[in-house]
Amino acid sequence: MLKQLLIHPRINEVIGRSGHHGKILIADGNYPASSKKGPNAEVISLNLMPGVVTCDQVLKAVLSAIPIEKIETMMTETSGPYALAGDPPVWDQYRETIRQSGLVLKLEPIEKWAFYDAVATDDHVLTIQTADQQRYANILLSIGVRMD
Amino acid sequence: MLKQLLIHPRINEVIGRSGHHGKILIADGNYPASSKKGPNAEVISLNLMPGVVTCDQVLKAVLSAIPIEKIETMMTETSGPYALAGDPPVWDQYRETIRQSGLVLKLEPIEKWAFYDAVATDDHVLTIQTADQQRYANILLSIGVRMD
Amino acid sequence: MLKQLLIHPRINEVIGRSGHHGKILIADGNYPASSKKGPNAEVISLNLMPGVVTCDQVLKAVLSAIPIEKIETMMTETSGPYALAGDPPVWDQYRETIRQSGLVLKLEPIEKWAFYDAVATDDHVLTIQTADQQRYANILLSIGVRMD
Amino acid sequence: MLKQLLIHPRINEVIGRSGHHGKILIADGNYPASSKKGPNAEVISLNLMPGVVTCDQVLKAVLSAIPIEKIETMMTETSGPYALAGDPPVWDQYRETIRQSGLVLKLEPIEKWAFYDAVATDDHVLTIQTADQQRYANILLSIGVRMD
Amino acid sequence: MLKQLLIHPRINEVIGRSGHHGKILIADGNYPASSKKGPNAEVISLNLMPGVVTCDQVLKAVLSAIPIEKIETMMTETSGPYALAGDPPVWDQYRETIRQSGLVLKLEPIEKWAFYDAVATDDHVLTIQTADQQRYANILLSIGVRMD
Amino acid sequence: MLKQLLIHPRINEVIGRSGHHGKILIADGNYPASSKKGPNAEVISLNLMPGVVTCDQVLKAVLSAIPIEKIETMMTETSGPYALAGDPPVWDQYRETIRQSGLVLKLEPIEKWAFYDAVATDDHVLTIQTADQQRYANILLSIGVRMD
Amino acid sequence: MLKQLLIHPRINEVIGRSGHHGKILIADGNYPASSKKGPNAEVISLNLMPGVVTCDQVLKAVLSAIPIEKIETMMTETSGPYALAGDPPVWDQYRETIRQSGLVLKLEPIEKWAFYDAVATDDHVLTIQTADQQRYANILLSIGVRMD
Amino acid sequence: MLKQLLIHPRINEVIGRSGHHGKILIADGNYPASSKKGPNAEVISLNLMPGVVTCDQVLKAVLSAIPIEKIETMMTETSGPYALAGDPPVWDQYRETIRQSGLVLKLEPIEKWAFYDAVATDDHVLTIQTADQQRYANILLSIGVRMD
Amino acid sequence: MLKQLLIHPRINEVIGRSGHHGKILIADGNYPASSKKGPNAEVISLNLMPGVVTCDQVLKAVLSAIPIEKIETMMTETSGPYALAGDPPVWDQYRETIRQSGLVLKLEPIEKWAFYDAVATDDHVLTIQTADQQRYANILLSIGVRMD
Amino acid sequence: MLKQLLIHPRINEVIGRSGHHGKILIADGNYPASSKKGPNAEVISLNLMPGVVTCDQVLKAVLSAIPIEKIETMMTETSGPYALAGDPPVWDQYRETIRQSGLVLKLEPIEKWAFYDAVATDDHVLTIQTADQQRYANILLSIGVRMD
Repeated sequence: MLKQLLIHPRINEVIGRSGHHGKILIADGNYPASSKKGPNAEVISLNLMPGVVTCDQVLKAVLSAIPIEKIETMMTETSGPYALAGDPPVWDQYRETIRQSGLVLKLEPIEKWAFYDAVATDDHVLTIQTADQQRYANILLSIGVRMD
Repeated sequence: MLKQLLIHPRINEVIGRSGHHGKILIADGNYPASSKKGPNAEVISLNLMPGVVTCDQVLKAVLSAIPIEKIETMMTETSGPYALAGDPPVWDQYRETIRQSGLVLKLEPIEKWAFYDAVATDDHVLTIQTADQQRYANILLSIGVRMD
Repeated sequence: MLKQLLIHPRINEVIGRSGHHGKILIADGNYPASSKKGPNAEVISLNLMPGVVTCDQVLKAVLSAIPIEKIETMMTETSGPYALAGDPPVWDQYRETIRQSGLVLKLEPIEKWAFYDAVATDDHVLTIQTADQQRYANILLSIGVRMD
Repeated sequence: MLKQLLIHPRINEVIGRSGHHGKILIADGNYPASSKKGPNAEVISLNLMPGVVTCDQVLKAVLSAIPIEKIETMMTETSGPYALAGDPPVWDQYRETIRQSGLVLKLEPIEKWAFYDAVATDDHVLTIQTADQQRYANILLSIGVRMD
Repeated sequence: MLKQLLIHPRINEVIGRSGHHGKILIADGNYPASSKKGPNAEVISLNLMPGVVTCDQVLKAVLSAIPIEKIETMMTETSGPYALAGDPPVWDQYRETIRQSGLVLKLEPIEKWAFYDAVATDDHVLTIQTADQQRYANILLSIGVRMD
Repeated sequence: MLKQLLIHPRINEVIGRSGHHGKILIADGNYPASSKKGPNAEVISLNLMPGVVTCDQVLKAVLSAIPIEKIETMMTETSGPYALAGDPPVWDQYRETIRQSGLVLKLEPIEKWAFYDAVATDDHVLTIQTADQQRYANILLSIGVRMD
Repeated sequence: MLKQLLIHPRINEVIGRSGHHGKILIADGNYPASSKKGPNAEVISLNLMPGVVTCDQVLKAVLSAIPIEKIETMMTETSGPYALAGDPPVWDQYRETIRQSGLVLKLEPIEKWAFYDAVATDDHVLTIQTADQQRYANILLSIGVRMD
Repeated sequence: MLKQLLIHPRINEVIGRSGHHGKILIADGNYPASSKKGPNAEVISLNLMPGVVTCDQVLKAVLSAIPIEKIETMMTETSGPYALAGDPPVWDQYRETIRQSGLVLKLEPIEKWAFYDAVATDDHVLTIQTADQQRYANILLSIGVRMD
Repeated sequence: MLKQLLIHPRINEVIGRSGHHGKILIADGNYPASSKKGPNAEVISLNLMPGVVTCDQVLKAVLSAIPIEKIETMMTETSGPYALAGDPPVWDQYRETIRQSGLVLKLEPIEKWAFYDAVATDDHVLTIQTADQQRYANILLSIGVRMD
Repeated sequence: MLKQLLIHPRINEVIGRSGHHGKILIADGNYPASSKKGPNAEVISLNLMPGVVTCDQVLKAVLSAIPIEKIETMMTETSGPYALAGDPPVWDQYRETIRQSGLVLKLEPIEKWAFYDAVATDDHVLTIQTADQQRYANILLSIGVRMD
């Protein structure tokens, strides 16, 4: 068992090959992981059962392992069958997890279809498929620079 | 033997990696499964012998396993060697299967060549090749959102 | 759509490469398809949902396509949690299907663990995994010689 | 040994996955099989030695196995080093083989470079490379619909 | 997102190909997943960070999906650097999870090196690598028979 | 189109990697090509339809391409359902083909099960699967030495 | 050991799958074999040590095996660090080798960057990487038609 | 252990297949190795731990093995979180290493985003991922011609 | 760039799949990495040029990442062409690196051929090939248990 | 083009992964390269046409690249169709090549079948297939230790 916090073998490999500007998508349980992705991305499935694992757990693990310089979220829809009133409650959890990791970064929400476009680029290196049941819980991280 | 209704190992894997907006094609026996498909799609062959299995059997199994929000069918041709007078009889069976699965969805027929185009997109994740002998029995499902 | 009765693309390929003495296992829904097999065997999954497809359907399709010279079945256990009183009812169906295919062959039951050993040999070329719910419905075919 | 006429394992698999509008090229011995083909096509080599096998043998085998609705041939060149005076003699053989298979179809010759374009489409699923020595013996089949 | 409890795409595929007598190892964080396994087994890594996921979570998910007839655990060592006084506390959790799943089965502890041998057989089809931090939390399930 | 007699791309590659003592099996249509072979052997299928191609055609092509020092055949069975009275007629054809190739070699028949053993060795590099309908038409070539 | 002149196993396979209009590049030791090539091309490395093998040796072997209808060479640069005064001396060797092979063909020089473009087309099937030390020794063959 | 200076097995293979105009990227520890690359490029990871190995070590090894005709570096940014005042100190080291290798070449800095574009071309054959901690340490080599 | 000390992507993956009793070989430059290894082991090449990287550098990186419970070294030969008088000087460096990592472990030398046997077991999961020039610098680590 | 003498990309990779005690077979044109080899060995074909390349050319290239400590040859047969009177003439060439490479090593002939056994071990890492026409020209190198 590795000694650090993030111990998943394949996630460690994929982000170890990436670098500045690379993008990591932490996908909620309803995200179309196999069809909305960039040509260089790998999909790793951690969706055991509803609620295991959550996006926030993955966020905590990833932030411990690699520098992040930008965090985008998917804006909620305000009409239609999946509409949500107000921001997804999980965003406050994300803000707390980011704060605890020592980062000073704001969540940057982008419109749903623009979010898909932001994912599906050459910079996209990894999707971690969770079983998070919250709607609009997707979160897209851009890798920064280690400066020590 | 798995306990749920849909027990096919590979179908469970492929739809388990997909999500909202992903498309599943249930192809009749004459559909060109290997050549009319999207770049992310996998083809699974369940065509043992004419009539085994049917599109309706696959529809029942898939509806039991994943939320569906839209169902499209291929419109019949009214002239040429394969013309059919009226809708394909199997559509009524589909309506009954959909009703029994608890969904409130209408079949949405689209013109044959537009149907091929609707299949062959990035959202297409799976074709299940059946041995259904009815002409124009193809049916295209769009995955929805699990909301519990 | 192929014109013959057996139209499954991969089954046609696998049995097309085989020949005299090769063995085809038609496995019921509870057979351990991935772990009790010979080193040259391929596993094809046709287990969509309980009862679709059955061993008898596969038997009918396979007998139409390739000569068979010997048919073995797995003997029932007469004690323990899975005991069956008398022969499995499906055996009579198999006898009828064999008769209709024009073959004059008896079912040859062998003891459960000897059956596993009979499968897991170099001659085993194919397992077709069904969703047959009958216990002890497994059936093992030995390929014969085409003599026209 | 399979019981039907077309027994080649891989051809059976490839055409078993195809369907209506799919195209099968039966290539003569000088056709550039590895470079003039569609992105979904597979190449199967049956070119043992000059004259074994011929395009006509393959035509007979394929017509026995799958419905065909259109048959195109490559027009001869009338000048240059490979010019042929009149139609290739093998076309009459093709017409006889088609008639014996019970089909009522005409050969539809197309100009050489247009023929290459007709092959290299998404609908192209299979090239069978023969050792036919006749020039301009290439023949392109479009799959039809099984209607029983 | 699949509708059932166990939604992991690859676990569903692997256990969907298995059957009676097949063995599933739920490995704790220190188990040598890549080196102590049977020749037919696949390893799926769900070890995100210490404590996520646990063996008990996986046990709950697996018991919901497939019939189990025998459950073995690794006996603790009573001397050496990794000795534990008494049974691992997690065993009581396992007993509760088993009870809640409706099964009437006892845990059957086996000595550590015999446990490795029990895993590394032809019947072993799957190891799920967890990040469970408890020592001796490994648990080995034998698949039973679906009898509806 | 290659200029020599043997023009099959894959056969040329496989025998081009082999050498002295390597064995080439020319299998008749009923030989179990996928299950009776050595661990280093590749199987190439030229069985288009019954009678196309024959073992004798392959023999002629192979003898033109590589030196052969020994030729073994499978002895007929004199009882049982596949018994043949006298030697297989095709053996005389083989003798003529060998003579025409300029070789001075006798056919060496070996008993059926010993023949399978003679094939399934480390020296076996290639099986060419024909559609020869004659029983006991299998022929096993041992590669010799080019001495110019 | 094959009996013909060209005995390389993989070259025989690759050109055996090609045909009329296919292109074979015989690359000198400084040609960028892995980056200037067509999407259907394979690269085979015969560059053991400087001067072994030469382009002319490969030319001799290829011309013995397959009909060629056009031969292009890379024009020299007349300025810059790699300029050559006059034609590369090896071109006379090529002319002699072509003559000895019985072909009546002229070398057709094309400008360096146009040469790269002529290589990197769909028709390009093979690059044979030599260790020829002469600058501008690259030679591009177009396959013709066997007409016996 | 090879006798030359550059002994890495895979680097030797990749650059052995390349040639004039091919590009080798020596990437610093923060370069996005898996997402900013050309379609023909391979990525080799030598980033063991920060500072092991450095770009300068790789530069020394590569210059010993293959002729280089052009060396480009990534220009520093003068604003933003990763700005550097003046040229990266490592550039002087590079100049010294180049001089010691016997080459007379200047470093040619190019703007950051143009540098990414210069990498991601068809000519890009290799990225060697280092663990160099200096910002803007990336260095892009263009392969020249061996002229002995 | 990962934040921890050991940042090599593939090493992190391989040791992330391993566990208690797994073995990691840090091989010196003359170790036969491709031929003396266990059936489950992967080989990762970090041998850039003589002295880069060294076994001691790899040891430092690995000890930072995973618990180790036993460290074996290869005993020197005292006669023959590669004899060394006394222990390899590098062993003292190893002892210092181990001490600095916080471990209390002795080096356990084993005879050369027994060392090869100790490597080539089922427990062997990884060989890291270095370019260490010291003879007998090989070092074999056995993974322990993380106990927080 | 690499600067050293041995420039073949794949040979450089394979011997770069090997080490002390590893074996390299330089096979003459009649050696059964695909069937007489060890389980860890790779086969690289350099047999363009008879006499190109020779074993002696490969020997020269390999000796330049890696230390060798033992050289074995295949003893001639003194009876049978391939008998040679006296040692193969090429052995003297080998002795001269070895001398010129600076090595002081004797050829060690071993009996033909023992030679095959000496090749087919776990230590065998590479066979280079030549087109050498001399009988008994095979030569087996054992890798030594680089000691600078």
